[in-house]
Amino acid sequence: MANSITDLFHIKYPIIQAGMVWCSGWRLASAVSNAGGLGIIGAGSMYPEVLREHIRKCKAATSCSFAVNVPLLYPNVAEIMDVIIAEGVSIVFTSAGNPATWTSFLKQQGVTVVHVVANTKFALKAEACGVDAIVAEGFEAGGHNGREETTTLCLIPLVKKAVNIPVIAAGGISSGAAMLAAFALGVSGVQIGSAFAVALESSAHPDFKAKILQAQEGDTQLRLKKLVPVRLLKNAFAEEVAIAEAAGADAAQLSVLLGRARAKAGMFEGDMEEGELEIGQVSAGLTKVAPAAVILQEIWQEFLTEKERLKQLKF
Amino acid sequence: MANSITDLFHIKYPIIQAGMVWCSGWRLASAVSNAGGLGIIGAGSMYPEVLREHIRKCKAATSCSFAVNVPLLYPNVAEIMDVIIAEGVSIVFTSAGNPATWTSFLKQQGVTVVHVVANTKFALKAEACGVDAIVAEGFEAGGHNGREETTTLCLIPLVKKAVNIPVIAAGGISSGAAMLAAFALGVSGVQIGSAFAVALESSAHPDFKAKILQAQEGDTQLRLKKLVPVRLLKNAFAEEVAIAEAAGADAAQLSVLLGRARAKAGMFEGDMEEGELEIGQVSAGLTKVAPAAVILQEIWQEFLTEKERLKQLKF
Repeated sequence: MANSITDLFHIKYPIIQAGMVWCSGWRLASAVSNAGGLGIIGAGSMYPEVLREHIRKCKAATSCSFAVNVPLLYPNVAEIMDVIIAEGVSIVFTSAGNPATWTSFLKQQGVTVVHVVANTKFALKAEACGVDAIVAEGFEAGGHNGREETTTLCLIPLVKKAVNIPVIAAGGISSGAAMLAAFALGVSGVQIGSAFAVALESSAHPDFKAKILQAQEGDTQLRLKKLVPVRLLKNAFAEEVAIAEAAGADAAQLSVLLGRARAKAGMFEGDMEEGELEIGQVSAGLTKVAPAAVILQEIWQEFLTEKERLKQLKF
Repeated sequence: MANSITDLFHIKYPIIQAGMVWCSGWRLASAVSNAGGLGIIGAGSMYPEVLREHIRKCKAATSCSFAVNVPLLYPNVAEIMDVIIAEGVSIVFTSAGNPATWTSFLKQQGVTVVHVVANTKFALKAEACGVDAIVAEGFEAGGHNGREETTTLCLIPLVKKAVNIPVIAAGGISSGAAMLAAFALGVSGVQIGSAFAVALESSAHPDFKAKILQAQEGDTQLRLKKLVPVRLLKNAFAEEVAIAEAAGADAAQLSVLLGRARAKAGMFEGDMEEGELEIGQVSAGLTKVAPAAVILQEIWQEFLTEKERLKQLKF
């Protein structure tokens, strides 16, 4: 049982848990890796010394592969990279920035590098920079998002056609059926965020997990488009942003409205009204908090079942 | 070779050509039906007597099943329905409106009825009204669109879980791989718009077809959200709308900006700058004008090839 992605990461299942601010620390990452997927520590919400602690605890909790996700727009990326190299992390996912800046440095240190993109232009650029694989993430994904608003179903075929390295699909995938749909489009792996944000081992605040499970269709919207587009769950803050945007608020006004530390306040500290709650459209279909291993196995078993069903179609 | 959708419509392939204003008259509908799919005459851009002429010409051009699409928000729906019954049309797709208004009337006349929805709430309502199947259409689709902005990959699993009647996927499907992805999600058929808008037999203006083929990622955007959300190809008009929306224009101002007959001017008469150009995100991947039968067979053959590839996966 192997393909280019399981080979690249030395994992059992081609299922990657997305690096998510305030959700994916060492507990979630090690749980996913121990279950046979690739767990990712999300460095985006960590100071360098906090990341060091998470890497060490993750290593103590699992002998399997795990990765660190680094959003390149964060201020202290150089220190984060120092910690990653010093602690011997072997797989890094970079996102939200230019793949030219860090790829060759990481590759020279022997690190496997994956870059997250929302369009073909950056997929080609990342491939040219020497990354080992691409995550192509669609409009339905939670958190930071592309300006083109291309959905996973439309994006994957375009990226697959453009690059020769393995492609991992992200955005809109929380079930085995959706994973199979991504494989039908030619990917070699899937990256799953929201479904693992509600895992028992996720460090998301329990009230945030409960709110995710209550979400219905239309309850997440792409907001702050004039700043950095981000998919948010509806609450008082998101409504305030929606009203400001409908009235024509510019980037500076949105920046004031956003202020600081709202993501932490919402996702980690549990302020369900004034916090910034990043989650994907699939939240409308999530039904329970469960251990990461159970979530992963349910997705995998459904993938196999649906693959068998598809085989039996009379066409 | 049969499933619930091929049985329902008496067609060979579970491929339905979307009813599209200014693109899908009798020439396109009969070409798709003769090729083994279900062709649809788009009544949304037709006066009742024009529709009558298209139905008669379609009947003369094919002995296969075809359908008429009726957007229920158009003013002269009652006269359109009279023409449909008088001319003996056996399949009607209703969209952009309340399925309660016309479903029982059509069913009493022995017509097979399908309703197009963008959310689960309306899928359930349509099922309760007695429709025979549902088209569930995602955010990536061209033309009129749902307010929830749910993508096809996220919408289909939710609708499939909610209803017991056959589901047809629409939005983001222009290839056999995307068709297979939709079948992986459990649908029994696909509805394809943009790929048939550039068919030889489509009545879209040649300049519109050429502009669709030039489109890149991000070149379509959901606009006029405060009025009726519609996915438009970028041009001078769409840019004017984008600027007005960014500045906070309200529904009344957008309505003035839209004016009248822009869809005809753009898609049918070829005004590429001031016209309203409705097309889906898949336009970024379309490469040529070809006969509808060629487009349909390419999709179908790729569906079979990709289905075989998926079978061979080592998992």
